[in-house]
Amino acid sequence: MNTIEQMTRTHPKDPEGVGEKVRACIEACGECAQACTLCADACLGEEGVADLVACVRSDLDCADLCETTHRLLSRRTARDDALLKTVLEACAQACRRCGDECERHAGHHEHCRVCAEVCRRCEDACRDLLAAL
Amino acid sequence: MNTIEQMTRTHPKDPEGVGEKVRACIEACGECAQACTLCADACLGEEGVADLVACVRSDLDCADLCETTHRLLSRRTARDDALLKTVLEACAQACRRCGDECERHAGHHEHCRVCAEVCRRCEDACRDLLAAL
Amino acid sequence: MNTIEQMTRTHPKDPEGVGEKVRACIEACGECAQACTLCADACLGEEGVADLVACVRSDLDCADLCETTHRLLSRRTARDDALLKTVLEACAQACRRCGDECERHAGHHEHCRVCAEVCRRCEDACRDLLAAL
Amino acid sequence: MNTIEQMTRTHPKDPEGVGEKVRACIEACGECAQACTLCADACLGEEGVADLVACVRSDLDCADLCETTHRLLSRRTARDDALLKTVLEACAQACRRCGDECERHAGHHEHCRVCAEVCRRCEDACRDLLAAL
Repeated sequence: MNTIEQMTRTHPKDPEGVGEKVRACIEACGECAQACTLCADACLGEEGVADLVACVRSDLDCADLCETTHRLLSRRTARDDALLKTVLEACAQACRRCGDECERHAGHHEHCRVCAEVCRRCEDACRDLLAAL
Repeated sequence: MNTIEQMTRTHPKDPEGVGEKVRACIEACGECAQACTLCADACLGEEGVADLVACVRSDLDCADLCETTHRLLSRRTARDDALLKTVLEACAQACRRCGDECERHAGHHEHCRVCAEVCRRCEDACRDLLAAL
Repeated sequence: MNTIEQMTRTHPKDPEGVGEKVRACIEACGECAQACTLCADACLGEEGVADLVACVRSDLDCADLCETTHRLLSRRTARDDALLKTVLEACAQACRRCGDECERHAGHHEHCRVCAEVCRRCEDACRDLLAAL
Repeated sequence: MNTIEQMTRTHPKDPEGVGEKVRACIEACGECAQACTLCADACLGEEGVADLVACVRSDLDCADLCETTHRLLSRRTARDDALLKTVLEACAQACRRCGDECERHAGHHEHCRVCAEVCRRCEDACRDLLAAL
């Protein structure tokens, strides 16, 4: 049982524990924020940085949105599912765009290839949760 | 001419400068993030904090979303207006909810009264920009 | 090999991969930011929230500092170890304070007990890295 | 009287209002986070982005640290001045480094020139507050 599971199971406003899809989405957003921050910096360090400007930009946007989505999802007290749905939609769009952009460079840069995969997983986790809310 | 104006006027990807509505929205989001962070903490410091839990929560969400919207709006290179629209919609919803919640306590707490006003202005700025995109 | 390992091993400015202590600290900061965000919200949801105000506050500070430290550590291009040391010192102090505060409530709230443990691990990871830089 | 003044004057844990130097530092950090986010993106949009990589990196670090410092300073409930001092020291160092880096490009890029000035002001505000705590 990882930290998120341990903590969400004892939340006072969620006695059965947070649903599995919420927990999966919290984890996916955390991992994606991490991957995008790493990828943006790795792109900046490449000799061909001029060809990676759109990738840096979509990485930065995706990292910011994933962190914010992660925080909102983690808050279970007095929550507002209508707001959460719009935020999840925005996060899924950012992941889609960043995944597409990273995929274009996947053949040349391993960090882009891994980041694209992580973005796909996070987009899926957001869409799964959206369908369940 | 303030800092945002000075800087946005010289952006290489935006020779005419960032549009007035974008700049107004960047400023409104920055102010709203600030007000919500202050209001969350002031609520935590009140004796009747138990009645202000929903207010703290909506303040924290609104601060996070306003900061992320602020960052995405400030990035003009390789931008994606479709993503920006969903983010602005989410930000406007967070401001609406936080403004409504703060207004309920405006008679008792000056910080909630001021924060409600700031949230209204930020919601309007997001809606104005959404209509123009 | 997890995502952080996969990505840091292929960073252009770090051909041998990021050092093990840096990677451990990135992971610890990510986990601690997550735990503190969850704990702050769980405290807000408790009936006795009035007794947990200092815990919410130290959770919010610790989450913000861990996220920022996480981001700075993840950036390997053009890095500045002198700045990183001060940031790690600040992060270790925030973890210490938050761990102490959470520990005071560990007997009553499982989320505080788990969060205290995570804060201790993150403080240790920051101190380990500080000693190595 | 601006929003920060209006709100800090009515904080329950700070009846006399937040000290003038704290307020000045909150404002300076907010402005600096904004300027650095704008400068990082403007640098990414320049044709000579390859020569601006260190500038983008120090902009991103400085924006993150200024936002976190801004948040911690805004929280007046159950505060910890020892932690705040280390955070202010880190923020001042990030502003110094970013101001130095931006200054190197001030002759070529107006956004770097303005950002350098904002970083200097923020470093001064952090140092002023540090001396007073």
